[in-house]
Amino acid sequence: MKFTIAQIAAILGGKVQGDENITVDKLGKIDESNLPEGSICFLSNMKYEHYIYTTNASVVIVGENFIPKNEIKNTNLIVVKDAYSGFTQLLQEYDKIITAQTLHKKIGIENPAFVASSAVLEKNVYVGAFAYIGENTKLGENVKIFPHVYIGENVIIEANTVLYSGVKVYPNTTIGKNCIFHSGVIIGAEGFGFAPQKDGSYKNIPQLGNVIIEDDVCIGANTTVDRATIGSTILKKGVKLDNLIQVGHNVEIGEHTVIAAQVGIAGSAKIGKYCAIGGQSGIAGHIEIANKTRVGGKTGVNATITEENTTVQGYPAQSYIGFMKSSALFRKLPELNKKIEELEKKLNDSTK
Amino acid sequence: MKFTIAQIAAILGGKVQGDENITVDKLGKIDESNLPEGSICFLSNMKYEHYIYTTNASVVIVGENFIPKNEIKNTNLIVVKDAYSGFTQLLQEYDKIITAQTLHKKIGIENPAFVASSAVLEKNVYVGAFAYIGENTKLGENVKIFPHVYIGENVIIEANTVLYSGVKVYPNTTIGKNCIFHSGVIIGAEGFGFAPQKDGSYKNIPQLGNVIIEDDVCIGANTTVDRATIGSTILKKGVKLDNLIQVGHNVEIGEHTVIAAQVGIAGSAKIGKYCAIGGQSGIAGHIEIANKTRVGGKTGVNATITEENTTVQGYPAQSYIGFMKSSALFRKLPELNKKIEELEKKLNDSTK
Amino acid sequence: MKFTIAQIAAILGGKVQGDENITVDKLGKIDESNLPEGSICFLSNMKYEHYIYTTNASVVIVGENFIPKNEIKNTNLIVVKDAYSGFTQLLQEYDKIITAQTLHKKIGIENPAFVASSAVLEKNVYVGAFAYIGENTKLGENVKIFPHVYIGENVIIEANTVLYSGVKVYPNTTIGKNCIFHSGVIIGAEGFGFAPQKDGSYKNIPQLGNVIIEDDVCIGANTTVDRATIGSTILKKGVKLDNLIQVGHNVEIGEHTVIAAQVGIAGSAKIGKYCAIGGQSGIAGHIEIANKTRVGGKTGVNATITEENTTVQGYPAQSYIGFMKSSALFRKLPELNKKIEELEKKLNDSTK
Repeated sequence: MKFTIAQIAAILGGKVQGDENITVDKLGKIDESNLPEGSICFLSNMKYEHYIYTTNASVVIVGENFIPKNEIKNTNLIVVKDAYSGFTQLLQEYDKIITAQTLHKKIGIENPAFVASSAVLEKNVYVGAFAYIGENTKLGENVKIFPHVYIGENVIIEANTVLYSGVKVYPNTTIGKNCIFHSGVIIGAEGFGFAPQKDGSYKNIPQLGNVIIEDDVCIGANTTVDRATIGSTILKKGVKLDNLIQVGHNVEIGEHTVIAAQVGIAGSAKIGKYCAIGGQSGIAGHIEIANKTRVGGKTGVNATITEENTTVQGYPAQSYIGFMKSSALFRKLPELNKKIEELEKKLNDSTK
Repeated sequence: MKFTIAQIAAILGGKVQGDENITVDKLGKIDESNLPEGSICFLSNMKYEHYIYTTNASVVIVGENFIPKNEIKNTNLIVVKDAYSGFTQLLQEYDKIITAQTLHKKIGIENPAFVASSAVLEKNVYVGAFAYIGENTKLGENVKIFPHVYIGENVIIEANTVLYSGVKVYPNTTIGKNCIFHSGVIIGAEGFGFAPQKDGSYKNIPQLGNVIIEDDVCIGANTTVDRATIGSTILKKGVKLDNLIQVGHNVEIGEHTVIAAQVGIAGSAKIGKYCAIGGQSGIAGHIEIANKTRVGGKTGVNATITEENTTVQGYPAQSYIGFMKSSALFRKLPELNKKIEELEKKLNDSTK
Repeated sequence: MKFTIAQIAAILGGKVQGDENITVDKLGKIDESNLPEGSICFLSNMKYEHYIYTTNASVVIVGENFIPKNEIKNTNLIVVKDAYSGFTQLLQEYDKIITAQTLHKKIGIENPAFVASSAVLEKNVYVGAFAYIGENTKLGENVKIFPHVYIGENVIIEANTVLYSGVKVYPNTTIGKNCIFHSGVIIGAEGFGFAPQKDGSYKNIPQLGNVIIEDDVCIGANTTVDRATIGSTILKKGVKLDNLIQVGHNVEIGEHTVIAAQVGIAGSAKIGKYCAIGGQSGIAGHIEIANKTRVGGKTGVNATITEENTTVQGYPAQSYIGFMKSSALFRKLPELNKKIEELEKKLNDSTK
């Protein structure tokens, strides 16, 4: 799609500096060396400022605070309040058009799919080829089920939710509105519970609960969410999970908490609202994490965090500042060790 | 299903205190705030005792040692030897009924499935829609293959094993009786082996071995077990693997070892029997772990452990107690550093 | 297949010591206790030398530098320049034969598959049952698509690339020649990008870019590679990824870099050529890693590495040698602490 610079400025509520009749049809990054003509990009981080004087982009979105150090001859500007927000808004507008042309056009059952006779499909549902919809399952309006998705019995999926190719949903799961699950997501597999026997072997503890996922939840590729032993594993409204995350049985994750890739959350942990958890961190079982907690990458949280709005890091987790200080000294341990040896020597010499 | 309290007490070999004719049809947890009428739960951990005086559950399973601090007016009791074991037994009985009504009823080939002409299917096998069974593959009695499972050529799966939707089994794999593989499990992909070439590039080392999985093995969602370069990668009887675990080529895991989520085991490592490995730990290649070793979460085991029945933790792994002591001092490094500086100052002052 | 020892020696350019007419039909490892007759194995690491005097293998490949300590009576030898290389060469020859008999024979579309009418399939392509090929997708000569693979719209896959069962490729991805993707690989899911809103919730940042994978790239089971926000996530020629790895949006991985299992690479990180990254390591977002960097297992790299050809380890990453020294002292922290306390006491006593 082609737009004039003037049209884009109108969408973003910005002002044009340069030729507003030039057309644009591609998104780019300002630090790309060979942006083609017709590209639009943005300048927000001033470490990239030098690119604006040489870029081939047809137009650059800049913030109203931007004062160029040199003259800009090679490109045109759209001046908005904040360059990054403006560009994000542009991405969203562009995405809306793309989505309308692709995702929204996927309607109906592609052949061959397996839809149980007791399944209920609302208006504008898409069921891709080789998808499997179990008995008594309900798919709300505009739900999009891509090829190779498996949905067991008695599952409820509310309006506008999208399950990409290869998602597996075990029976009795409940999924809210406007959710997006990427390929390879597994919802509702058995929690990891085994009762040790006298001979050292283990007997499976039946996992009779389910998973409840509220509205606006996004789950990344190959992430797994186990069902509860009894009761429910719960992802609250607006939770965002990245790829390859493990969510154990009976875990609860609070509203609008974001979790980066490869985090593991052990059984029955309860994570608050508005938390942010860094990649590859681990949360021990049966502990609680207060609202607005920030957990640094690769952290091992092994105890309940009761105070809201703190940042922790390390293995085991401690305060972020404490971790930074201790880590710096960890590097200096050989030096500290030497100092101690010297002190011992000196003291021995002086007391001889 | 509804049972009277008397019927449940009879199953568990317990005694009723209260009204034995009340019926129960739901499992619950004592700390759930709004347990519906008809719920049964248990009290084992005394930190939850206060809930027993207010719960809406119709009956609570308690141990024979339980002496209530207050009068219990609102619910009924079933008194058994040990509350937790009693509840687990109840779960198992309940699960048996559910399984008989669901899993055991899945029999026959659902359409469309792909079953090679030379494949052999014993009695009561289920092959779900869109499942793929390769040439010369044998499925034992009561094997249940869910939709979207792929089984390559020359695979043997023994009786009662269940492969949930989306499991992939490469050719020449052998799987024992009573195994459960959850969705997304990949068995037998190529081990990671590359021979460095003179120009810095790599050439694949062919992986010509297979995977052997013995009886009673459970594997969690999205876990991967690579095939051997030559010979076999082996999971012995009773091994339990959680989700998102990596098992490298030529690894051997001993009988009744349990491994938590996101653990990685590098090529040719040999893990003993009755071990327990915590989540996100890593085991280096070509090392051995003695029987009954316990590995704490997030540990990096980089050397052979020869002594049985020890507990290790840390990165790199050390004794659990040592790790705890050193970790506590890691937090105090800024303090220790200050002490050293003060000592230096003092000593300098005193020797001036 | 059976070969005489003489035939194998001819393939490897080696000399026979013993009976060159004996036939061999199995590959084995010298430390296997019950190698069947007809086995061939190799001796490279001299810690295994004692096996050569008792093995049942029909022939052992040895290097020309090998001087036996005892007389070898029980087996025959093929003497080559380097035993390990010789055996690897043998594996490769064996693999070629197997591949010709299996993979290369898979040609045509297995029923039922879904191939969009606008998709283009070159000569000798295989599309397995239940595979899905989207609109405008192009599969080059000899491309092999196994069952349950999903390929979205506008994907290009060049000659000889193999996608095993269950691989998912999102729209607009480009994949080069001679690539191998194992089961469960997900290419092109949405990058993890969310714009925080004033109320603490998040709005998805559209991910409008794609993934570009060059020639000779191998990707292990259940690894995920996210698409770029704008532009491309790029895996350069010869990259080798193990299982369960996360590659974030806009990441670039240089030629012939190898990455072990469960590594996570955050968005916009740029990794050089000829690097080797150990298992379970994490690379922070927006940083650069110089060519030929070696990263030890479980390392957390949180800052750009500018010097080529260095080795780092630890959390956070430091020089390998520094990490080893500091780790050794970490274990001794209780001892160091005691020394400091003693020094304080002594000094106090001496200054009293």
